[in-house]
Amino acid sequence: MYAQAYFAYDSKKSGGVTISHLRFGKNPIDMPYLIDAADYIACHRQSYVKRFDILRGIKDGGTFMLNCTWTDEELDKELPAKIKRAIAKNHVKFYTLNGDAIGQKLGLGTRINMVMQAAFFALAKIIPVEDAVKYLKDSIIKNYGKKGQKVVDMNNGAVDAGIKEFHEVNYPASWADAKDEVVEGRPVPEYFEKVAAPMLGQVGDDLKVSDFVGREDGTMPSGTAKFEKAGPALHVPAWDAEKCVGCMQCSFVCPHATIRPVLTTAEELAAAPEGFKAAAKAKSGKEYNVTIVVDQLDCLECGSCVNVCPAKALTMVPNDDKERAKMDFWYYAQDKVAPKANPQNKKTVIGSQFEQPLLEFSGACAGCGETPYVKLLTQLFGDRMMIANATGCSSIWGASAPVSPYTTNAKGHGPSWANSLFEDAAEFGLGMFMGVDKVRKDLADEVEAAKAVASDELQAALSDWVANMYEGEGSRERADKVVALLEKEAAGKPVLEDILEKKQYLVKRSHWIIGGDGWSYDIGYGGVDHVLAQDQDVNVLVLDTEVYSNTGGQSSKATPSAAVAQFAASGKRTKKKDLGMMAISYGYVYVAQVAMGADKNQLLKAMTEAEAYHGPSLVICYAPCINHGIRKGMGKSQTEEQLAVQCGYWDLFRYNPDLKEAGKNPFSLDSKEPDYSKFQEFLQGEVRYASLKKGFPEQAEALYAKTESDAKARRQSYVRFQKGFEA
Amino acid sequence: MYAQAYFAYDSKKSGGVTISHLRFGKNPIDMPYLIDAADYIACHRQSYVKRFDILRGIKDGGTFMLNCTWTDEELDKELPAKIKRAIAKNHVKFYTLNGDAIGQKLGLGTRINMVMQAAFFALAKIIPVEDAVKYLKDSIIKNYGKKGQKVVDMNNGAVDAGIKEFHEVNYPASWADAKDEVVEGRPVPEYFEKVAAPMLGQVGDDLKVSDFVGREDGTMPSGTAKFEKAGPALHVPAWDAEKCVGCMQCSFVCPHATIRPVLTTAEELAAAPEGFKAAAKAKSGKEYNVTIVVDQLDCLECGSCVNVCPAKALTMVPNDDKERAKMDFWYYAQDKVAPKANPQNKKTVIGSQFEQPLLEFSGACAGCGETPYVKLLTQLFGDRMMIANATGCSSIWGASAPVSPYTTNAKGHGPSWANSLFEDAAEFGLGMFMGVDKVRKDLADEVEAAKAVASDELQAALSDWVANMYEGEGSRERADKVVALLEKEAAGKPVLEDILEKKQYLVKRSHWIIGGDGWSYDIGYGGVDHVLAQDQDVNVLVLDTEVYSNTGGQSSKATPSAAVAQFAASGKRTKKKDLGMMAISYGYVYVAQVAMGADKNQLLKAMTEAEAYHGPSLVICYAPCINHGIRKGMGKSQTEEQLAVQCGYWDLFRYNPDLKEAGKNPFSLDSKEPDYSKFQEFLQGEVRYASLKKGFPEQAEALYAKTESDAKARRQSYVRFQKGFEA
Repeated sequence: MYAQAYFAYDSKKSGGVTISHLRFGKNPIDMPYLIDAADYIACHRQSYVKRFDILRGIKDGGTFMLNCTWTDEELDKELPAKIKRAIAKNHVKFYTLNGDAIGQKLGLGTRINMVMQAAFFALAKIIPVEDAVKYLKDSIIKNYGKKGQKVVDMNNGAVDAGIKEFHEVNYPASWADAKDEVVEGRPVPEYFEKVAAPMLGQVGDDLKVSDFVGREDGTMPSGTAKFEKAGPALHVPAWDAEKCVGCMQCSFVCPHATIRPVLTTAEELAAAPEGFKAAAKAKSGKEYNVTIVVDQLDCLECGSCVNVCPAKALTMVPNDDKERAKMDFWYYAQDKVAPKANPQNKKTVIGSQFEQPLLEFSGACAGCGETPYVKLLTQLFGDRMMIANATGCSSIWGASAPVSPYTTNAKGHGPSWANSLFEDAAEFGLGMFMGVDKVRKDLADEVEAAKAVASDELQAALSDWVANMYEGEGSRERADKVVALLEKEAAGKPVLEDILEKKQYLVKRSHWIIGGDGWSYDIGYGGVDHVLAQDQDVNVLVLDTEVYSNTGGQSSKATPSAAVAQFAASGKRTKKKDLGMMAISYGYVYVAQVAMGADKNQLLKAMTEAEAYHGPSLVICYAPCINHGIRKGMGKSQTEEQLAVQCGYWDLFRYNPDLKEAGKNPFSLDSKEPDYSKFQEFLQGEVRYASLKKGFPEQAEALYAKTESDAKARRQSYVRFQKGFEA
Repeated sequence: MYAQAYFAYDSKKSGGVTISHLRFGKNPIDMPYLIDAADYIACHRQSYVKRFDILRGIKDGGTFMLNCTWTDEELDKELPAKIKRAIAKNHVKFYTLNGDAIGQKLGLGTRINMVMQAAFFALAKIIPVEDAVKYLKDSIIKNYGKKGQKVVDMNNGAVDAGIKEFHEVNYPASWADAKDEVVEGRPVPEYFEKVAAPMLGQVGDDLKVSDFVGREDGTMPSGTAKFEKAGPALHVPAWDAEKCVGCMQCSFVCPHATIRPVLTTAEELAAAPEGFKAAAKAKSGKEYNVTIVVDQLDCLECGSCVNVCPAKALTMVPNDDKERAKMDFWYYAQDKVAPKANPQNKKTVIGSQFEQPLLEFSGACAGCGETPYVKLLTQLFGDRMMIANATGCSSIWGASAPVSPYTTNAKGHGPSWANSLFEDAAEFGLGMFMGVDKVRKDLADEVEAAKAVASDELQAALSDWVANMYEGEGSRERADKVVALLEKEAAGKPVLEDILEKKQYLVKRSHWIIGGDGWSYDIGYGGVDHVLAQDQDVNVLVLDTEVYSNTGGQSSKATPSAAVAQFAASGKRTKKKDLGMMAISYGYVYVAQVAMGADKNQLLKAMTEAEAYHGPSLVICYAPCINHGIRKGMGKSQTEEQLAVQCGYWDLFRYNPDLKEAGKNPFSLDSKEPDYSKFQEFLQGEVRYASLKKGFPEQAEALYAKTESDAKARRQSYVRFQKGFEA
């Protein structure tokens, strides 16, 4: 018996689909294409029948196995018409199996792979079922034997259940004529309907070349993630308007931008759907009512918002019909509530959240430590941002084809984004800057020349523009003023017309180069160093998960001693590289190290100072990751960041060359003297450290001690460095 | 009229040959091969007629133009028989021209290109000579017009002279039968005779595949540069035995290893050729007489030795027959004088020079600032060195095919050397280390196992070996002892026989990764950083010329502000990167910054500490280069290094992690507080800085001030860093 297998994965960090294409036969199989006519199709997750055309290509008389919790009656209600027709018209032998119930009963939880495999062998009859059972049980001993008899027994139980606990559905012939339900959906753009939706539905290969007419350069429209609305959450946060104190921390830390404040006038509040309430004691947004709305259809139920809420105004509740109805609140805020000028300072924790996040609903893991940083950047500078992204998690959640989580504000302004290679993001971003800078310098010459033919008012606006052309703050307003005047008087004056044509360059762009530690500490470090050395106005944001996250957790030079990672199975021996201090050695690079959960104000200072600095900047962000194995769960990544700083695992600092120019101490060690007594406890809270004790007990204690003393030595070097400037 | 031109260059840094293959015709020329049958051959340098088969392939009746200072009578004496036969047998029209005399008369010095071009057009008659003169003079205005009328006039004079001041040689028919002079040469190895000599003679393309039998892996034997003996020097140093104080500085600084001390016993001195004297008042080598010998045939007459001699015991003299006879002294020292155990400490300036340099007669530029450092390394560790070399000058002078300047001592031990790519030398060198380390660790297991079957004496030697297997000092002696005992008792004992077979691994190797600043600061920096971070026992030596030397002087991150370089034509704007401090940030990397001419003892300390440190090391060497345009000349590169440190342009320091472990201050700022009043004078002594004032007078002063303040700030950061450990 021969077999061939192809596995098709998608690139999402969460909620991704895997399709296994398996062929069996008496002769060797060497088929170079995926299966398009199947004898047997199994769907292991019931929600997929609603999202995908699961039975496409099933043969007449084929077999369909669906893992689901539905009874036959429920099936009739839940199955989409398209699936019903495919079953009936193809005379499909249709079976269901409640794998989750079996898993729960056996203690395997949601691990249903063995149940489904056994059912496959029982129904597909590739080999005699008794042989299959024997082989499966042999493999169980081989793979799980070391984990003890209990695990072996549970898996053997799954095999025994899988071969018999399925049920043939006796479906009515009328399914052949099942009618499609007409769902009144929200409008989507043509790109989403024509290109993105088929790709999301796993039939992207059917797209014709002509579907891409008008998109020949490969540019993907932004602002499309919001149309996906896959709604995976079983639980969502419910907001209590009475308890909310308006601190905005929920919105600040949400990795997915699915919980946000909305500001309403009295009229807007009155016109809102029933149940849409304003916070009773919100202290912010004085002119407006404040409501917290939740996008249940994009929430990944990490619980970060609930965990950071100081007022217990948020609780996780089942995402039932009652909760789902609250999507109306979200849509009302999106569609009917007018965008408002920020009533507060956007450089504060609260004020920043009255800015629209221009990164939303990415495919990042639930509770991701990276996205809150980038989301905040888009709230601060997003309407004039250009991003050069390294390859890694941030390029996956940042641009999982076919949708883009980067979006635009009501005026159509938002980040532009591109990724070239893993290693060249810094150089790529510098090139973006150099190109834009050249155009703007030429534009400045034109502006000078234009004054001769401009009105007094325009002359003044142009002079103001030239004087402040490199200042980000107020740039949008200065550009708008110039454009408004140009639109009045440019006609017939070629130099003014030309400036108007280049109006997008009037706004000072905010150049960001974003990537992880694998890129910035390791593979792309040569480029990061080279670009920082060039003394140009670009900003580098490092999302430091201390490990190659996207590729499955390989050790990087950002990985501290004692951490267990791929290529460091017995704990890393060398300490974490001090990327920040290496960049500081140039003297003209703004450098900051931050941790959102530990100090949001310091983070805001770092981001705004870095952006305002007229030279290269480097901001290194501590970002918890699923690879850390945080025992508290990813919903507590903010807490973990706080603990990391409190115990001395991670230090916060800022180095500002402008302060040195002004004769002040450029280095500010922002985190307090740590409480090292909590250091080891912190390590034991994460599997990446705790597992070392299990695997390598003799070496673990020494490595734990080393990583603590490394941290202390690093802190001491910062203290010495800071004092050096004071002496 | 159409033309085609191919130019064949060799890779030597000095004394390289260029051959121009020119074709002319009325139709387009698209010949894919070099010329092998020529109508016209010109030789622009008279010494080449003795080194190369210049007239190979000349057509019957062809023309030969030789630029030389010889009269017709001298020609008869000087021309090799092979050339004479080629002239007479092919009925060649033979012309000579004293281009150097013309150049001197016109003020063009040795620039004879225009004279020779004009002569070519006069004799080859490609186009009417009056047209050629017109085109040449037009090109002179175009190319030199900006340099003033005087330069134009000089070149026009060269054209006018070139078309008439040549002379046809009326050679005798007897040249057709000229007999080869039989020269009694010194013996050379088969590789040199069969492979290297033809390549050096520019007929390497004639080599057959079978000539490479036994060399299929591409390995090139070392110790072959010494057979080249091209003898280019017109002047050589003459040594005064009466004045010499035996300080050995001449030998220490010689970039080419052509001046060395030789230690003789009374018998050896008595048996020496006439005129071979011992130093009258040499203070070192107490048991032996000391003589300084010069290899005139490899000396490049840079004058470094003369310039550093504190006793004026060396003077440059014409390399006439009398001086040339002193080669017998050199050969006597090489062939007849027995190698001696070093009578002094090899870690001192004097003692180091009683070690044989294992880098000699490289193709480096006369006065090269790089080679003295590497030569010294070979004197300290050469018999157990493995070198991974980056691409750049050091890979060119380190391995210009077909000869190798790296050589072996009397016992056959010397550096192994390899080069992979420009950028990967650090990784390549780490790989060498990892491979050797694995073999040695396995060997240690075998050694432990071997004790059971070893004699008491061998057991003790093996235990001593294991206990010190990672110590370089004494490693050779310990290995020799083990091998001597194994040779006595290994027979019939497989484990002992196996160790004996791997005896080369008993010696602790000294791993060096060598390259320039283009590699280490820029293109290969990612790798340098990565390798240093691995905490393995490898040593990185950076030859910092502050510019991409090998490719013609492009700016690197090692280039300081204000320096003029390719891609920084108006002076570099950003300051020199502080590579040393960046490596120090790891805490476990030994780092030193050195300058031979400023402090030889500090240099010796740095090299020996770096090598002895059981972890990664980085030694950054200031290396003057022809690209600097040192006004004093390259013979003063040692003085330039001294001035650089005195004025604060370059700082000397060492950071030793072992001291930190021992509770001491790990950082030692070794150079004294600089005299900054000499900083600007230093800059003006080098064309790379001085030329900025000519090209960009407005910006020059500001950039000169910036580079001085950059240097002061860097020094201050070192002072702060050192003090930080004291507080």
